[in-house]
Amino acid sequence: MRPPQGPAVCDNMIHVTFQPSGEAGEVEPGLTVLAAAESLQVPITAPCGGDGRCGRCRVIVEGDCAAPTAAETEHLSEEDLTAGYRLACQAQLRGDAVITVPAESRTTAAKIISEYSWREVEPAPNVRQQSLKLAEPALEDQRSDFTRLAEALDEGGDELEAEPVVLRSLSDAVRAEDFSVTATTVGSRLARVLPASALARSLGVAIDIGTTTVVVYLVDLQTGEQLATTSTLNPQDRYGHDVISRIEHVSQGEGGLEELRSTVVGCVNGLVSQATSEAGVSPDDIFEATIVGNTCMHHLFLGLDPTNLAQAPYIPVMNRPLSASPREVGLAINPQGNIYCLPVIAGFVGSDTVAVLALSRLSTREKPALAIDIGTNGEVMLWSGARLLVTSCAAGPAFEGAEIEHGVRAAAGAIDRVWLHDGDVRISTIGGRAPSGICGSGIFDVVAALLDSGAADAMGRMADAERAGELAESIARRLRGEGPKREFLLASGADAADGRDIVFTQKDLREVQLAKGAVRAAVEILCTEAGIKPDDLQEVLLAGAFGNYIDAGSALRMGLLPPMPVERVQGIGNAAGAGALLALVSMSERRVAAELAKNAEHIELFTRTDFQMVFADSMIFPAAGEAGG
Amino acid sequence: MRPPQGPAVCDNMIHVTFQPSGEAGEVEPGLTVLAAAESLQVPITAPCGGDGRCGRCRVIVEGDCAAPTAAETEHLSEEDLTAGYRLACQAQLRGDAVITVPAESRTTAAKIISEYSWREVEPAPNVRQQSLKLAEPALEDQRSDFTRLAEALDEGGDELEAEPVVLRSLSDAVRAEDFSVTATTVGSRLARVLPASALARSLGVAIDIGTTTVVVYLVDLQTGEQLATTSTLNPQDRYGHDVISRIEHVSQGEGGLEELRSTVVGCVNGLVSQATSEAGVSPDDIFEATIVGNTCMHHLFLGLDPTNLAQAPYIPVMNRPLSASPREVGLAINPQGNIYCLPVIAGFVGSDTVAVLALSRLSTREKPALAIDIGTNGEVMLWSGARLLVTSCAAGPAFEGAEIEHGVRAAAGAIDRVWLHDGDVRISTIGGRAPSGICGSGIFDVVAALLDSGAADAMGRMADAERAGELAESIARRLRGEGPKREFLLASGADAADGRDIVFTQKDLREVQLAKGAVRAAVEILCTEAGIKPDDLQEVLLAGAFGNYIDAGSALRMGLLPPMPVERVQGIGNAAGAGALLALVSMSERRVAAELAKNAEHIELFTRTDFQMVFADSMIFPAAGEAGG
Repeated sequence: MRPPQGPAVCDNMIHVTFQPSGEAGEVEPGLTVLAAAESLQVPITAPCGGDGRCGRCRVIVEGDCAAPTAAETEHLSEEDLTAGYRLACQAQLRGDAVITVPAESRTTAAKIISEYSWREVEPAPNVRQQSLKLAEPALEDQRSDFTRLAEALDEGGDELEAEPVVLRSLSDAVRAEDFSVTATTVGSRLARVLPASALARSLGVAIDIGTTTVVVYLVDLQTGEQLATTSTLNPQDRYGHDVISRIEHVSQGEGGLEELRSTVVGCVNGLVSQATSEAGVSPDDIFEATIVGNTCMHHLFLGLDPTNLAQAPYIPVMNRPLSASPREVGLAINPQGNIYCLPVIAGFVGSDTVAVLALSRLSTREKPALAIDIGTNGEVMLWSGARLLVTSCAAGPAFEGAEIEHGVRAAAGAIDRVWLHDGDVRISTIGGRAPSGICGSGIFDVVAALLDSGAADAMGRMADAERAGELAESIARRLRGEGPKREFLLASGADAADGRDIVFTQKDLREVQLAKGAVRAAVEILCTEAGIKPDDLQEVLLAGAFGNYIDAGSALRMGLLPPMPVERVQGIGNAAGAGALLALVSMSERRVAAELAKNAEHIELFTRTDFQMVFADSMIFPAAGEAGG
Repeated sequence: MRPPQGPAVCDNMIHVTFQPSGEAGEVEPGLTVLAAAESLQVPITAPCGGDGRCGRCRVIVEGDCAAPTAAETEHLSEEDLTAGYRLACQAQLRGDAVITVPAESRTTAAKIISEYSWREVEPAPNVRQQSLKLAEPALEDQRSDFTRLAEALDEGGDELEAEPVVLRSLSDAVRAEDFSVTATTVGSRLARVLPASALARSLGVAIDIGTTTVVVYLVDLQTGEQLATTSTLNPQDRYGHDVISRIEHVSQGEGGLEELRSTVVGCVNGLVSQATSEAGVSPDDIFEATIVGNTCMHHLFLGLDPTNLAQAPYIPVMNRPLSASPREVGLAINPQGNIYCLPVIAGFVGSDTVAVLALSRLSTREKPALAIDIGTNGEVMLWSGARLLVTSCAAGPAFEGAEIEHGVRAAAGAIDRVWLHDGDVRISTIGGRAPSGICGSGIFDVVAALLDSGAADAMGRMADAERAGELAESIARRLRGEGPKREFLLASGADAADGRDIVFTQKDLREVQLAKGAVRAAVEILCTEAGIKPDDLQEVLLAGAFGNYIDAGSALRMGLLPPMPVERVQGIGNAAGAGALLALVSMSERRVAAELAKNAEHIELFTRTDFQMVFADSMIFPAAGEAGG
């Protein structure tokens, strides 16, 4: 017998180093670069879920690697391959390697919208904390500890309930300081009783789970004061950038659903912990969490199977408001607290949309009004003056830069503004850094600039060499390539962050055109359904990061919206998060949200016989002067 | 270094053998016989909790033992000690020993009352099971799986709730057999959804937790059919025979409460498991448990601190109806099920009393009526025709044989009937065995016989030698001893199970007198409080084992009840268990029970200025012919 030798070691492990982070370690040979990066916790973006479809996980590999796959030869040019570029999801490691992850392939902290619209609202939360001096027991007053407390609470108390675990410490708690106590109730449930002198707070968190970003708002429920806001990228991103990729991951079985669930719950717990640290408070004082997100995020957070969301007829497991116990969900707040998930409306109209409806009170307007929320997906809400209609459309990815050749998230270096000046385009970037790509607001502007300069026509065709001759010289020389490879140069490699030219391609323009066509078609169809003319819309609210940053003029110029005066269009910020906050601090707002979800009429665009026709019309860009503004 | 030697062994362990069971094993020297018995799981009765107060844990020790303690010399005669008798809770083992546990010191399975009064009641339980064919989803019907199901349920369904864990399997369950399902709801909560062909039942258990005995009734909630009844001694008995001993065990800290809680929950789980095995069903089909017990049992089952029950002003932690999750309580039924604890009324008026009120519907009588439940404690309930009054009194132990010299539980060999015949007393025993002691019904009869024969007078004095001369010869010769040591011979050692004379002592008579005085005083005081005369009582219901087995004539003869025709007195069986069953199978019965608990007026006897006087009067035994009958 040989003596034991400590932990087993695989003889042929290989050593990999990731640059620029310097993370290094041993992995098994045969792993893809992406798998190796995951095992060493190096973030690499893989929007398509690592299927080789998107070509976005470009890395430079120096070392022993299997030959490029078909997916790689499709997405990488001969020049790229010569320079050592590989797709992280495809390239199989055979021996030691040094892997450089360029900026555009890194998963980085995005620029987060932490400002939000806040309506004046009287704090009237589900969680209440009361300080009480109870009558002392006597032979003439033999009420139980519980009844004594219940009858002293403001709510009266015939309805008060409690779990045994709370009752187990009740008699000690009430007697510790001569029947002076601080009691916390969550709805009609007694959640905590402490001696009066104990430092007790009642806090809450509003949680906005976006496909891309997760935000936690920490609030003092007694005062309504916001104590901290924390956010991060949704770490489910590693399983795919969009909801469809994530649902596919679930469909593959083998614990994919639990993986996605625990990933996002872990993320939320991290954000809650960070927020409480920042505010110097205890997570045990958090008695309620309100949750908003699209239907897929809602399902994944609760561990509900999202599979049927992705296939007609797009059926959610659960649409109604849902209260759950922190223990069951795995949320690290007071175990006696409550988790309230706002209701969803349909497979692709989630509680984030409900939150927008609740925050904006769209349906209280006298005149017809529209709200649009474009995050990773697009939702359109129409109040006709009598009916509230909602729908979703496949609009998001392009506007967020996901299907755009040089599209990036709104982080430092992203081109966020493009405008015409002196017959040429000018750009600005976030933080004034060397440009790294184009983010959503930049995409809107560049399309408007292409249309205004004549570099693209109403059909979405970039000017060919012949038509380019009629354009301003400085515009014309930015156009290059032929046919489907035609592209518009925004920044030359000499100026750019990674030395490569930043361009907006004909294909990019088509992607934007499809997306804007989808949104516009949704608007037109809702108006038709409601029997109003687009002209009647007195107000258009743009929600989300989208709404905060895009230029309303550019949105009108590209025909995302029907022609109208630009003053009618306004951003309302991260309305989803704000809606979750409203539902957290005010029970009447929560009830309003639930009613809105129940009464909103969901229109499924695909079931409309007029959809294809309207969609085709909606893809056409307006001629100059036709878009309003 | 020495090589390891397997499990550590204490060099000086001693070997003990228990007879007649033959259980044997090694224990540490210095343990008491009781502790050694517990470690080897040999049941020895210790009603006082092992404090040396009751003198009931008599055993015969052959071997090396420390000298008798003061408690032993108090409880054991010189003769006993010479014969090797020791108290198990006191005798410290020093070396190997053989210990004989006489029958009277063994904890044995008691005779259980499984018959109970059953009112006709329409099954309308909290748990409902429905077989449904749901409409299949379509683009024109995009309702979520949950809403689809909720709207198909009889209840309508706007109120239907569900925990995430149930929703997690919902979409698979509804699609497994083309949207044909069997759904189980518990109140307004969806608890289980299975494909239609799955064998699904909805079962419930009613649980009666007595200080002495725990009974579980297993019921099919769809039909109301009883499937099995199981019962056992409450294993908390090892921590003390009465509630006060158990509360003292809790007060000593060091996890005593958790010990008592887990002991009874484990016991209930064992009974549930036994019942489901007998009925050939699965515990996972049990969706509700209703619980009744005295207030201390109620608290211990839930893990609530009973300390304040034992000291004025006798405050319970919780008195209201309580619903709890099986997971929290630790009950091995379907985790989505519900545990419903019936409400208690006061520190010594528990949900067992509420169950008696609910079963008997005492307060629906037109005329004044009384109910008495004497288990280990005594509760008296009076319906005056307008008010429902309840109180408790320290009555139980003597009637159950606990403070009686030769008192035993109602098991085989117990003297259960005593009567006068041909100028002498006659006895019968349970199962016709050689007599081992006197159980409750025998105690009532012997007191009646003592009074009727003149062997005792109205003041509860046994006839002294002089007065004995006036009695029938066969009675007189049974009287022996002097003053407080006077006693009445019931069975001579030659006939008895363990060879010792079975006697009823002057002290026993005093114990019974105190107990009956307490009950009678309670009756008198409730009548006074309600403004009725005892004569007005048209009906007296006797609940519990007590009510089933005692002779109503004997009860009247000793003056437990005011004088009345014997026909007005009737036993109603184990009303507590039957009340738990009612609350299990019928929600309207459950609501009635809750209302009764709320509306019953609790009278604390000690707070009454007239209590001492009434109590003194109530101790007097009626003269012949004064008791009714």
